[in-house]
Amino acid sequence: MKKVTIHSPATVANLVCGFDILGLALNDPSDVMQLSLIDEPTIVIRNADEFGLPTDPHKNVAGVALLSLMETLKTPVGFEMTIQKRIKPGSGIGSSAASAAGAVAAANILLENMFSPDDLIQFAMNGEKLASGVKHADNIAPCLRGGITLVRSIHPLDIISIPPPPMYVTIVHPQIEVRTSDARQILKKQIFLKDAIRQWGNIAGLVTGLLQRDYELIGRSLEDVIIEPVRSILIPAFAEVKRKSLEAGALGGGISGSGPSIFMLSKEITEALTVEKEMSSIYNRLGIENSTYVTTINESGIKIVPDEIL
Amino acid sequence: MKKVTIHSPATVANLVCGFDILGLALNDPSDVMQLSLIDEPTIVIRNADEFGLPTDPHKNVAGVALLSLMETLKTPVGFEMTIQKRIKPGSGIGSSAASAAGAVAAANILLENMFSPDDLIQFAMNGEKLASGVKHADNIAPCLRGGITLVRSIHPLDIISIPPPPMYVTIVHPQIEVRTSDARQILKKQIFLKDAIRQWGNIAGLVTGLLQRDYELIGRSLEDVIIEPVRSILIPAFAEVKRKSLEAGALGGGISGSGPSIFMLSKEITEALTVEKEMSSIYNRLGIENSTYVTTINESGIKIVPDEIL
Repeated sequence: MKKVTIHSPATVANLVCGFDILGLALNDPSDVMQLSLIDEPTIVIRNADEFGLPTDPHKNVAGVALLSLMETLKTPVGFEMTIQKRIKPGSGIGSSAASAAGAVAAANILLENMFSPDDLIQFAMNGEKLASGVKHADNIAPCLRGGITLVRSIHPLDIISIPPPPMYVTIVHPQIEVRTSDARQILKKQIFLKDAIRQWGNIAGLVTGLLQRDYELIGRSLEDVIIEPVRSILIPAFAEVKRKSLEAGALGGGISGSGPSIFMLSKEITEALTVEKEMSSIYNRLGIENSTYVTTINESGIKIVPDEIL
Repeated sequence: MKKVTIHSPATVANLVCGFDILGLALNDPSDVMQLSLIDEPTIVIRNADEFGLPTDPHKNVAGVALLSLMETLKTPVGFEMTIQKRIKPGSGIGSSAASAAGAVAAANILLENMFSPDDLIQFAMNGEKLASGVKHADNIAPCLRGGITLVRSIHPLDIISIPPPPMYVTIVHPQIEVRTSDARQILKKQIFLKDAIRQWGNIAGLVTGLLQRDYELIGRSLEDVIIEPVRSILIPAFAEVKRKSLEAGALGGGISGSGPSIFMLSKEITEALTVEKEMSSIYNRLGIENSTYVTTINESGIKIVPDEIL
């Protein structure tokens, strides 16, 4: 039986000023997914973790993405899929995208790359729609491609890789619930033109800083005057976490996706580790359970790993 | 008597999606300015053109910029300045910025570079304020530095050069009046978040395209969903000029500054020349007097030229 096992990485979407367009892939954590090709046109899902996610493919993000891929197939094949989620659902670091993108990327390996990268993004977006109600690619694109990706446009799909300089990423996940749909509803539909201008100045600065490996410019441009002031009220101690992280030497950072995780970018690992300490000490003091990661940018996206890993 | 003669170039601000932040310098046209250092703390302005601009330094853009520079000087010196404007005032290709930036850049040469590039921008912005009522740097910055510049922030001033790949620029100046202040007033103070997101996706795409010399990406990203739909109604036949230019092979373009000039970027000179023909034939057909330029991006900004030129 044809079988493949992959690591599907966590991702940070809404990269500060790059709301809805910029995302990056992380080297840690990653989901482990094992897919086998079967002759019956059906999907069998097994969970190898404690999250108790639905195994009905129509109610499972990975299942919906796979179903959307299977709709385009002429020969009747199906998949058995074992999922070990290591990215906590609801943490804001692209858990649903890892499932959706991982499923279709693994399936494509089994199908000998019959689909293009853009096809995979389209299939995976159907999974994301189940999770958040909105088709969006800002976690899926970096999950599949690695690095930092720009979703310039969804209709038509136009995804551009922006190779970043080496950076460390510190993540804190305070164990509170922020629903993506709530985080969307809280946003105003209209914004001030002057704020938008400041935001697009920062986006241009951030992209230039990334491509020219100018860490100071990256730091100065990591400012969000539109989304963060609204959404950060959903995350306890956000302002303190940010202030302490910057004092500890982080270049900048903000809400990961729609939260509650917060991410910070640093040039050096020593800074990234100090940031981690500050983050967890704040939430420990407040009695809010939390987990942290110090990791680097995943350059290659989804990876094939030995089958024995699962 | 210490004397210097310079070329101060025309510039295109509001580079399509980069409203208020991105501008580029042109190799043609340029104003010619000759400055001499004098002992009296006064400014004498002579016009060597037919535009009849004010010679009272308090009412002249170049004069106001120079006055603002002189305020910071401890020793009492002044300037005699002869200005030959070749960039038509009100054309939308940075005529006032060329005067303001040219005056302070020339003065700084005479003063042996006692001021920093950022100082010069600050002085010149006071001249721009006289012209348009608003302190803005999006023409001044490319005029002084050349190339394409990003004004990431005005407070504090943060200007970043974005080196562009070789491109040809076609400009048409239909001889109608669009006042900068009118062009500002017509804009809505609030915009839709979804439009802003599309705009910043395009800005990120444009900057990436410029830095990675990806002409196709530049072309796809030259889209403005916020300002152009509003302002283009002030410019007769704008939509037709744009459509015909794209058909002729231009990468893209839009309103230069606040108009009425329209600019188009092309990869090859043959395309740039066809665009020029299309542009002028449209305005000729409508009976609107017009002038055109086909030029390249000025890489170095203001240039010292032989004194005999004037």
